[in-house]
Amino acid sequence: MTAKRTTEEKMTAGRQQVADSIEKLGNKLVGQIEAKDNPSIEIPIRGSSNVFYDEKGKKIVLGDKVAHRYLFNVSHARRFMQTMLVASYVKKDLLANNLTATLRDLYYAKKRTIANTKENTIEEQKESDMAIVDLEVSLDTFRERLHLRAEPKGRMAGDVVVNDRVKDKVDTIDLSRMGSGGWAVPSIVEQIEFKDVGVEYVLVAEKNAIFDRLNEDGYWKKNKCLLMTTAGQAARGARRLLQRLTEELKLPAYALTDSDPYGWYIYSTMKYGSMALAHESDRLGCPQLKFLGLSMSDIEHYDLRSVTIKAKEVDIKRAQEMKEYDWFKAKEWQSEINKFLDKKIKAEIQALSSKSLQYISSTYLPDKINSKDFLP
Amino acid sequence: MTAKRTTEEKMTAGRQQVADSIEKLGNKLVGQIEAKDNPSIEIPIRGSSNVFYDEKGKKIVLGDKVAHRYLFNVSHARRFMQTMLVASYVKKDLLANNLTATLRDLYYAKKRTIANTKENTIEEQKESDMAIVDLEVSLDTFRERLHLRAEPKGRMAGDVVVNDRVKDKVDTIDLSRMGSGGWAVPSIVEQIEFKDVGVEYVLVAEKNAIFDRLNEDGYWKKNKCLLMTTAGQAARGARRLLQRLTEELKLPAYALTDSDPYGWYIYSTMKYGSMALAHESDRLGCPQLKFLGLSMSDIEHYDLRSVTIKAKEVDIKRAQEMKEYDWFKAKEWQSEINKFLDKKIKAEIQALSSKSLQYISSTYLPDKINSKDFLP
Repeated sequence: MTAKRTTEEKMTAGRQQVADSIEKLGNKLVGQIEAKDNPSIEIPIRGSSNVFYDEKGKKIVLGDKVAHRYLFNVSHARRFMQTMLVASYVKKDLLANNLTATLRDLYYAKKRTIANTKENTIEEQKESDMAIVDLEVSLDTFRERLHLRAEPKGRMAGDVVVNDRVKDKVDTIDLSRMGSGGWAVPSIVEQIEFKDVGVEYVLVAEKNAIFDRLNEDGYWKKNKCLLMTTAGQAARGARRLLQRLTEELKLPAYALTDSDPYGWYIYSTMKYGSMALAHESDRLGCPQLKFLGLSMSDIEHYDLRSVTIKAKEVDIKRAQEMKEYDWFKAKEWQSEINKFLDKKIKAEIQALSSKSLQYISSTYLPDKINSKDFLP
Repeated sequence: MTAKRTTEEKMTAGRQQVADSIEKLGNKLVGQIEAKDNPSIEIPIRGSSNVFYDEKGKKIVLGDKVAHRYLFNVSHARRFMQTMLVASYVKKDLLANNLTATLRDLYYAKKRTIANTKENTIEEQKESDMAIVDLEVSLDTFRERLHLRAEPKGRMAGDVVVNDRVKDKVDTIDLSRMGSGGWAVPSIVEQIEFKDVGVEYVLVAEKNAIFDRLNEDGYWKKNKCLLMTTAGQAARGARRLLQRLTEELKLPAYALTDSDPYGWYIYSTMKYGSMALAHESDRLGCPQLKFLGLSMSDIEHYDLRSVTIKAKEVDIKRAQEMKEYDWFKAKEWQSEINKFLDKKIKAEIQALSSKSLQYISSTYLPDKINSKDFLP
């Protein structure tokens, strides 16, 4: 029987593992150079021809098509060099010093004019961003493990105590004592430990306004839930944290968005991942997530017809596309989308405020949760 | 000698005061109706003809021009009615129940088809938004005192303990124990009490990325500062909190933005207020705020020339306009703007990452603060 590893030990081992895999990649290339072979990297293809819906795992994933990138190939050489610059920065600047950086920091750090030429290593940030994803997928890891931060977004409140660490400093944070602000969800959440968990489910609201409403009404206290807002499309940190909450703590999770294709899209990205980030679904997707509302039938059931909004052409086009997606093929979703296409109306979650300000916390949410009225 | 009022007593009294002033407005109108006068409201004019720069107070303010809005005037009647709907919602739904709402909630709550007509009380949200501002200025108060919330944005960390309250629940929040996330700045900050303050200044960064960098480097701990990010253009909550920190705690405050007209605009809005919200400068402006950087001379001094960006036409046009603003007439700012117009380059704050990731916290910031190298 071995002692359970501390979070610090796990984090250190994680860094070492990524550093080792970069070292291994480097050694392979050195071997190829010494053998006078053309140095090459294997990179899984991320285009739509290699993106699939995994019905069983309920996520959008990459297939097994792989591309080989060669140093001595005019159309590969530049991106090859950029991938090496990224690998070097991640290993030597970030992992070795236990520091994190943004994609933009990396761009600035590695942008240089190559000696005796007029050629820049990186011209625009999108080049280094692409090289970062190349490295992620070729190492079968993800951005946060490379110590690269994304823009954080989102807030939380509820009866959960977490430990979060910044380098050697460990803070114990009681999410039930965050006042009207809430705790800001960080960019990287790998280091977070869940301590005392006094909640029965997670409620994720698309909108800050709903977080504020439910926080003011003491909803999370009365209903034993952990309340989170993604403040729009969910950031990577919020998505990963949601996944960890549902997988490690086995908490059910329900999403609350507007009743329109954009709301469905926010939901589906949190649940299944996205086509653009199919290589990340394993760690950013949350297959357990269910759609609580606002649904098309809610509009009738809660008599919200007078506060609906006429759908725009772009909404209708979007809905028609979504209807064809494999991950919207469940009959409940086909019926939801058909209702939308039939009535051509949408509704914001705040439309519930037309009943009364506290209707959402006193009636709508308890109703929906008690009757398990969710979309899959 | 009277005992010091508690925050709760102050909040209650504040609500009562606003409710009384709405009542007074209503009584005045009833009096006019009974006297068979044409009911009217006095509303300070907010157009550019009534917006001035107050050199002494260092803020953008409204002049004393006032408009009269009459109920029996075809071009006033609709807006008159909407202002009354807003006043009624604020008094009866919000203040009376000690609840807060968003502008959108109010819109949904008060949008109705008027009986026996095809006329809606409010067609689009911008109508009720305008009516809200009308009520604010005519009562000489501000939105948060009407219990209306704006979208919150921003995060904080530092050696400061605050009490924040949500209705009757008071939370004591230690901003030095917020891990990598930070405390999310709320929409309304009137109720926040500053308890233990172990900092010597406030550092406001425009960007989340800089907050994360400085938090990871333990900058706020080592340098005894309260760190805040506005995550772009500052939200009302963040602006008001910054004002309270500088006025009530007498803390100096320094802003850190990109070196470009948009960065200057973010700074000037936090410091002087804006023309669109001139009626709010008194409570949202922060005249003590100073501009730490990134400045045009920093680009040369810190040898960042190779990581600058060519200014766009729109940047140049914006700079030419800003050069004429009364609040940019200080010789230091005229010189800053001239340098920009001369060189036609801009630089992001992350350009400092080209030196090294921790250069900003180990060298740049201590340098600038020790030498008091600020723009006014």
